[in-house]
Amino acid sequence: MNPFRFHNPTVLYYGAGQIEAHLADEVRKYGRKILLVYGGGSIKRFGLYDKVMGILRDAGCQVFELAGIEPNPRLSSVHKGVDICKKEGVELVLAVGGGSVLDAGKAIAAGAKYDGDVWNFYMRKDRVKDALPLGTILTLAATGSEMNGNTVVTNWETKDKLGMGSPHLYPRFSFCDPANTLTVPRDQTVYGIADIMSHVFENYFSTAPNTPYQERMAEGLLQTIIETAPRLVENLQDLEARETVMYCGTMALNGMISMGTAGDWATHAIEHAISAIYDIPHGGGLAIVFPRWMEYVVDDAGDKLAQLAIRVFGVDPSGKSKRETALEGVQRLKDFFRSIGAPSSLADYGIGGENISVMAEKAVTFGPIGRIRKLEKEDVERILRACLN
Amino acid sequence: MNPFRFHNPTVLYYGAGQIEAHLADEVRKYGRKILLVYGGGSIKRFGLYDKVMGILRDAGCQVFELAGIEPNPRLSSVHKGVDICKKEGVELVLAVGGGSVLDAGKAIAAGAKYDGDVWNFYMRKDRVKDALPLGTILTLAATGSEMNGNTVVTNWETKDKLGMGSPHLYPRFSFCDPANTLTVPRDQTVYGIADIMSHVFENYFSTAPNTPYQERMAEGLLQTIIETAPRLVENLQDLEARETVMYCGTMALNGMISMGTAGDWATHAIEHAISAIYDIPHGGGLAIVFPRWMEYVVDDAGDKLAQLAIRVFGVDPSGKSKRETALEGVQRLKDFFRSIGAPSSLADYGIGGENISVMAEKAVTFGPIGRIRKLEKEDVERILRACLN
Repeated sequence: MNPFRFHNPTVLYYGAGQIEAHLADEVRKYGRKILLVYGGGSIKRFGLYDKVMGILRDAGCQVFELAGIEPNPRLSSVHKGVDICKKEGVELVLAVGGGSVLDAGKAIAAGAKYDGDVWNFYMRKDRVKDALPLGTILTLAATGSEMNGNTVVTNWETKDKLGMGSPHLYPRFSFCDPANTLTVPRDQTVYGIADIMSHVFENYFSTAPNTPYQERMAEGLLQTIIETAPRLVENLQDLEARETVMYCGTMALNGMISMGTAGDWATHAIEHAISAIYDIPHGGGLAIVFPRWMEYVVDDAGDKLAQLAIRVFGVDPSGKSKRETALEGVQRLKDFFRSIGAPSSLADYGIGGENISVMAEKAVTFGPIGRIRKLEKEDVERILRACLN
Repeated sequence: MNPFRFHNPTVLYYGAGQIEAHLADEVRKYGRKILLVYGGGSIKRFGLYDKVMGILRDAGCQVFELAGIEPNPRLSSVHKGVDICKKEGVELVLAVGGGSVLDAGKAIAAGAKYDGDVWNFYMRKDRVKDALPLGTILTLAATGSEMNGNTVVTNWETKDKLGMGSPHLYPRFSFCDPANTLTVPRDQTVYGIADIMSHVFENYFSTAPNTPYQERMAEGLLQTIIETAPRLVENLQDLEARETVMYCGTMALNGMISMGTAGDWATHAIEHAISAIYDIPHGGGLAIVFPRWMEYVVDDAGDKLAQLAIRVFGVDPSGKSKRETALEGVQRLKDFFRSIGAPSSLADYGIGGENISVMAEKAVTFGPIGRIRKLEKEDVERILRACLN
């Protein structure tokens, strides 16, 4: 493995009853002026808003609100939150929602302690040196944002969707109760599953030497998701399946499976370029791109792809070349995504080839992407074309 | 899974060059008066002592020393360390060695901020409310003490070996360079491997519902160790194998695989009773007791034992009862331990049946042990008798 430093300071609360038992104490550690960040209002429909507001009021907090965070959270919303924090002297950002809400919360926490435009961090023009404390209550299993320092935001004016990370942006605390994900509709549940699997893939396709246990952890996540997802898609009220998927989402991107690895992450850059232009769900885009990326790099990552095929998808390698085994695994991944109702091509979103060059250009904004194989603009164009149908 | 709170604040540095690059900065965060705790002098023979002392001197530290920590660290040594800390106003305990040295360091850190006898914590008469900051440099892969808040100490006067844990006892930082384990002799290497596997077993045999990914993580650790250990025992200079085993040791007991589980831990209590009387190596004792515990609880933990047999030991279950599958797995575990040179019975240490009743009594000092099956004194006696040959 590569030498590494690991430090994940987030205090994680999992399961029923934790919000009631511990939220007030956690919040009080940081102050009484709270910015509550949330999305389209589902937390109001399903009672979580009232529960949280009740606890905050009983704790003597003054609560400011920023509602309406978009599924691909927009810089314009982040700016609104930063303004509230600066104007009101907010002491803690509390993000209640899915990964988009959490990512917006992180951007707001960073922007509140910064004189320039928070977008500078995403454009790699500056680094986060300080941030407001952030707490989260997760309502959608997908991004892992509840236990890492990463955030992705979309600048709708320039049509750029970019990510950044900082040690200052780890949530101080996160509450994950699978019961709060029971009302997530089928399509978003599926996108979350595709997102989680994609995080595992990005880490699994690493160029670091000697990472056998990291690979086992990654394979175990995929096996667990593949066993659980069909049950969940069949019955969205299956609380045990919700719990398993939520836990896998956290573990897929909290730094555990990537200790000492060097993940690829080209596919995420490609998907960000697609949804920056078309505003499609991130997980949907990933389900389309990842199998095509695997096919494109089959001669660069044959060993790992064959291992994935055998260990995770149960492909029998006997009598097959490594390449054949690898490609059979990719086909099983496509079949799995289709079986749970994930999109399988850009055509499923009505997207044609008209912007392929623009998207490819965006994907390589900061230079060639990926580690397994360095992808130039032309490579990205080829992968995108393979995604069309 | 059970509701849980997870918080592991240790800053972990893995790999070559990290001590040189980061030790001085980490130490300086806590102060300049350092108590250096170490064992029998191997860190002097192999150059680590000189390297660390050079870095501490260059950082302007005043270093006090406590050498000679025993393999089963003794309360008397801990008392010496506590005295130095109190007398000299030590600001940071730096433990350089294996798990015993680290555990002694934790006890010293707790005792330095406590008016009573540190043994009270182990006797469950009091709880740790504060401790000196602790840093560690690991030289032996085994206990996982580098990334948890647990410590085990032996009171040689009363012949009690007891453990305790506290959030205050997580190392603030730990440096793990597999090169520092290259000189560990064969027997200690094997004991370390048995210890790591036992930590996985204790967590794996849990009574919590719905923990499929925690089980996969545990199984992956066992698979990785089983693949790697024979290579390492064959060639103690295999740095990649050292690295893999060291990493598995950390991951086996840093709280990751036990999130939301309820582990058994009866076997550890039994082993502690054995080595409190006979001062045998902890890992050696565990390799003897664990297969016998598994056989004893085969009708209580048949599902999990059969799963272990199939997934980790490759037992083919076709045509066999669950019980037969489970017991075949236990036999393979025994065969594996024997193949790497671990002891297989108490007779290997020249221990007969004379103290079985005393040991069983000690094992249940605080009441019945274990969760898979609550073991009374008579159960422990039966298991110990099965360990004799």
